[in-house]
Amino acid sequence: MRWLKLTVAYDGTAYSGWQIQLYHPTVQRVIEAAWQSITGEVCRTTAAGRTDAGVHACGQVVGIATESLLSPTELQRALNAKLPADVAVLNMEVAPDGFHATHDAIRKLYRYEIHNSRVPPVFNRFYVWHYPRPLDSQAMHQAGRWLVGRHDFSSFQSAGSDRPDTIRTIHRVDVARGPRSDDQVTIEVEGDGFLYNMVRTIVGTLVQVGRHKRSPPWVAEVLAAKDRACAGPTAPACGLILVRVDY
Amino acid sequence: MRWLKLTVAYDGTAYSGWQIQLYHPTVQRVIEAAWQSITGEVCRTTAAGRTDAGVHACGQVVGIATESLLSPTELQRALNAKLPADVAVLNMEVAPDGFHATHDAIRKLYRYEIHNSRVPPVFNRFYVWHYPRPLDSQAMHQAGRWLVGRHDFSSFQSAGSDRPDTIRTIHRVDVARGPRSDDQVTIEVEGDGFLYNMVRTIVGTLVQVGRHKRSPPWVAEVLAAKDRACAGPTAPACGLILVRVDY
Repeated sequence: MRWLKLTVAYDGTAYSGWQIQLYHPTVQRVIEAAWQSITGEVCRTTAAGRTDAGVHACGQVVGIATESLLSPTELQRALNAKLPADVAVLNMEVAPDGFHATHDAIRKLYRYEIHNSRVPPVFNRFYVWHYPRPLDSQAMHQAGRWLVGRHDFSSFQSAGSDRPDTIRTIHRVDVARGPRSDDQVTIEVEGDGFLYNMVRTIVGTLVQVGRHKRSPPWVAEVLAAKDRACAGPTAPACGLILVRVDY
Repeated sequence: MRWLKLTVAYDGTAYSGWQIQLYHPTVQRVIEAAWQSITGEVCRTTAAGRTDAGVHACGQVVGIATESLLSPTELQRALNAKLPADVAVLNMEVAPDGFHATHDAIRKLYRYEIHNSRVPPVFNRFYVWHYPRPLDSQAMHQAGRWLVGRHDFSSFQSAGSDRPDTIRTIHRVDVARGPRSDDQVTIEVEGDGFLYNMVRTIVGTLVQVGRHKRSPPWVAEVLAAKDRACAGPTAPACGLILVRVDY
């Protein structure tokens, strides 16, 4: 038995998220189906992040245990030939024995992109949140700093979560205009783990500050309340992308 | 009567090109339909480039003559609210009397993007030509230099063209890797006008050089032959975008 580590990109638009479901198309299903058609193996993949419906990834990490004797390069090539056009394996390599993409991850980077212009986005329309009213990105950045550190993030967890431990460490929250144009507001959140809808709730909360409806320190109050009702609304899934996972 | 100059972006994937056709969706039709629903006017737009089916634009220029008393800003906002998500008006301003977007254009810039990697593109898949075999972008750049100047471009015109005058001036042809990653080969072609499928035929011809099937000076032979059969194949439409038009 060999353990493989795959780096995977997908356009989440057409999928009900990562995790396999009985009646809906998911990224996990198309990868496991492609794997089976190539190797004959019924495998169960592990993944760094169980991204929600509509969320994208350019650095999802997937673990597979296999008896296949094909090289990682051959398997990658065969998978990319089988996979639909909205999913691709960017890299494949041999991992340490017992590699588990979920449990072994120590740090994840998510990016959220807001298209902040009256003019609608054309080419990025499936990958951004179109928010036409003015946003103060500097205030949003200041607000984000209150989230950095080890905290109970109950206020930023959507109902329906199965995670009883709500303590997480956020290493950084950066908000800036760009990089391609001033119409973009890019939010990067890096942490050791995330609760259900946590990044999208952080974004929705920072937007309240960006609109000057709240001041940056209000975010500390939201955090202290440990009550989802105190935070801002959940930002749309389409603006979110899982960028990188560290092991 | 006032003349307006619109700068328009569109994802050409779903359209049979710019120009209105009886039975197929075109960008001209959706813009003229949106215009009519806002102003009540049946207008006939002019456009800098009659882009083909599947070709994109981020700087198409469109001319409209109108009796509407609404300001350009109001008209732009109303149009963007009416237009489908794959078409947007980036800018609208008052133009000189009698402005004609086709006849008044003096220079156009087209960009062609090749995704040159074994790994398929995910997020750009509708906006690039996926070409998995190695390409020598420096040889392609050298080959492109033979096209610069005032020439008869008959060899680079697809059959079915209605343009009897085949003399055009090409100001520059630049081929380079990037700008976002080394997997990209970007070809920019700037000229005073273009024949039917001319940029795509130039790209298909440069790719022959990039594959080392031909040397850069071969392009001068193709040009001199004035015979479409001598040039390379026409590159796919999806990689092409009309970037800018000067007046």
